[in-house]
Amino acid sequence: MSVSILQRQSTAMRRIHPSPSVAIVGATGAVGAELIGCLERRNFPLSRLKLLASPRSAGRTLTFQGRDVVIDGLTPMSFDGVDVALFAAGSGVSKDHARRAAADGTIVIDNSSAFRMDDDVPLVVPEVNADTLGTHHNLIANPNCTAAISVMALWPLYRENKIRRVIAATYQAASGAGAAAMEELRASTEAHLTGRAYEPRVLPHPYAFNIFSHNDTVDLESGENGEEIKAARELRKLMCAPDLRVGITCVRVPVFRAHTIAMTVEFERPLSPDQAREILGAAPGVDIVDDRNANRFPMPRDATGRDNVLVGRFRADKSDPTGHSLALMVAGDQLLKGAALNAVQIAEALMK
Amino acid sequence: MSVSILQRQSTAMRRIHPSPSVAIVGATGAVGAELIGCLERRNFPLSRLKLLASPRSAGRTLTFQGRDVVIDGLTPMSFDGVDVALFAAGSGVSKDHARRAAADGTIVIDNSSAFRMDDDVPLVVPEVNADTLGTHHNLIANPNCTAAISVMALWPLYRENKIRRVIAATYQAASGAGAAAMEELRASTEAHLTGRAYEPRVLPHPYAFNIFSHNDTVDLESGENGEEIKAARELRKLMCAPDLRVGITCVRVPVFRAHTIAMTVEFERPLSPDQAREILGAAPGVDIVDDRNANRFPMPRDATGRDNVLVGRFRADKSDPTGHSLALMVAGDQLLKGAALNAVQIAEALMK
Repeated sequence: MSVSILQRQSTAMRRIHPSPSVAIVGATGAVGAELIGCLERRNFPLSRLKLLASPRSAGRTLTFQGRDVVIDGLTPMSFDGVDVALFAAGSGVSKDHARRAAADGTIVIDNSSAFRMDDDVPLVVPEVNADTLGTHHNLIANPNCTAAISVMALWPLYRENKIRRVIAATYQAASGAGAAAMEELRASTEAHLTGRAYEPRVLPHPYAFNIFSHNDTVDLESGENGEEIKAARELRKLMCAPDLRVGITCVRVPVFRAHTIAMTVEFERPLSPDQAREILGAAPGVDIVDDRNANRFPMPRDATGRDNVLVGRFRADKSDPTGHSLALMVAGDQLLKGAALNAVQIAEALMK
Repeated sequence: MSVSILQRQSTAMRRIHPSPSVAIVGATGAVGAELIGCLERRNFPLSRLKLLASPRSAGRTLTFQGRDVVIDGLTPMSFDGVDVALFAAGSGVSKDHARRAAADGTIVIDNSSAFRMDDDVPLVVPEVNADTLGTHHNLIANPNCTAAISVMALWPLYRENKIRRVIAATYQAASGAGAAAMEELRASTEAHLTGRAYEPRVLPHPYAFNIFSHNDTVDLESGENGEEIKAARELRKLMCAPDLRVGITCVRVPVFRAHTIAMTVEFERPLSPDQAREILGAAPGVDIVDDRNANRFPMPRDATGRDNVLVGRFRADKSDPTGHSLALMVAGDQLLKGAALNAVQIAEALMK
């Protein structure tokens, strides 16, 4: 397909073929496995599934809908005849391949941070801003997991009552650092319980029964880490809220695959916990978990393996006597709404 | 000792005998074990150590300075001849015994929440408000662990630049719920790793690789849990800051014995991260852990078994463009500065 045809197509929303050929880039990773699972479970109407990974995984097979699919090594030719490519192999691979594949006519949904803030790339959570898919140029970014999970709670509230400020602290799972980090959590915990030494290989600090500031690079000037920078700017882009003030502390906790976020949210006008519960109770993709009697609120155990994001612990922020601020907690599966599910939902939105 | 003599004595600070007879109430618990350890390690100049616990532990022995000490069952007579009693057996036991022991002339340092907010009971962290020991009535309260650890970072800053507002999220260890909760964390994690079922007995939710809102009772009206209520009001009492606004979310994480707290702190005047680092670098009982290059900040692993509280991750709060707010993290051993160490430090302050 020539670039001129592509450019004409991209002036309006280019929808996906009703029975597209789909490729997964990074099929052997934690997100890759969930992409396969989501396509399967949601009966995504694909005509063909191509699994791509690094050359060292080429030739291995993975199962899709009961059949073995052989993994191909990723090359620039891999996207010939592919309608939709779901990238989940990190920023480097995305930078090397995604723009070219998009220029050649494949619709790329990219899970990395490589293009998220580019002006010509929509950053999409379908429940929030599916409308921004209207002008894509074959490249669509899937948000950072913390941003994607947080925005599921923030956006429905924001629509009713503009949010001025968010102060958040996260309790982030191993999966955000990949399958190897999940294995490091398991192995180091086992070692700890049996009194054996364990030298961290994937994460910078001991993970067993420990928490630590998020492992993304720390900006030496500001002291923020990369995860905090991403979460704040992506929340602003997702909600089209350039003035939203975000102060966030991102922390890893010894949990396998669901992130929890404690938030204090300041609104333009007063908002009661009951109003917030009602608004979010009607929001798509959100389940309310808010049982004061049973002391049951959003937990990673309950969010794991679940498509919907859990929201609860609605209460007045006791540090704001004006009634403009609420505290709440959110928990979502990092590999599902925080990554694979949202990418597949973007593809589904493009088929509607 | 008659009540009239006691009342005369309590108008001025009653110091402890230079070589006092000491009792530990709740000697078999998690805090009790650390009290024994602190007295031993700090060469507390006691003349005699009496270990008290529930009748079912009576007759067992614990080791102190290489010698076996037989545990006595607690009775109202237990405090005869005891100069200082360190209570660490929960609010119920404190309510039953502490006031009577104090009235009979024993100086009681109580680790429970029973008397902390009573006007006639000083609530003390020696580095912060040892001066309030000047008017005790033989009963002194040891603060809630979250308050004690947080105040070590907040007070030195507050003295330089009045704090208006604190928004905090905690990462609290098992030890705050006692030795049985620590064992539940261990046993349930082991069960999880070996694929066995585990029914929670001590805590309300599965603890292995999970986090949950703090297990203290939830106020059905406000939605705050007991830990949040205690932390906020005790911070105000400790710093003698009745107008301090505190919004806090208390959460249990699968960590054995050190609490971590992520805080956003708003000051009366602008304060830079460098100023905060300098102020806290000179504060007693505080160690700075703030290495942006190595991404090393306060962690429970480093705080465990350590007397000093770790403070770091100083950075501007990105949600406050005025420069009045800072973000920082604090980690402290829940059983040491959060409980046993602080109690022994109170006793030491009373001997000076």
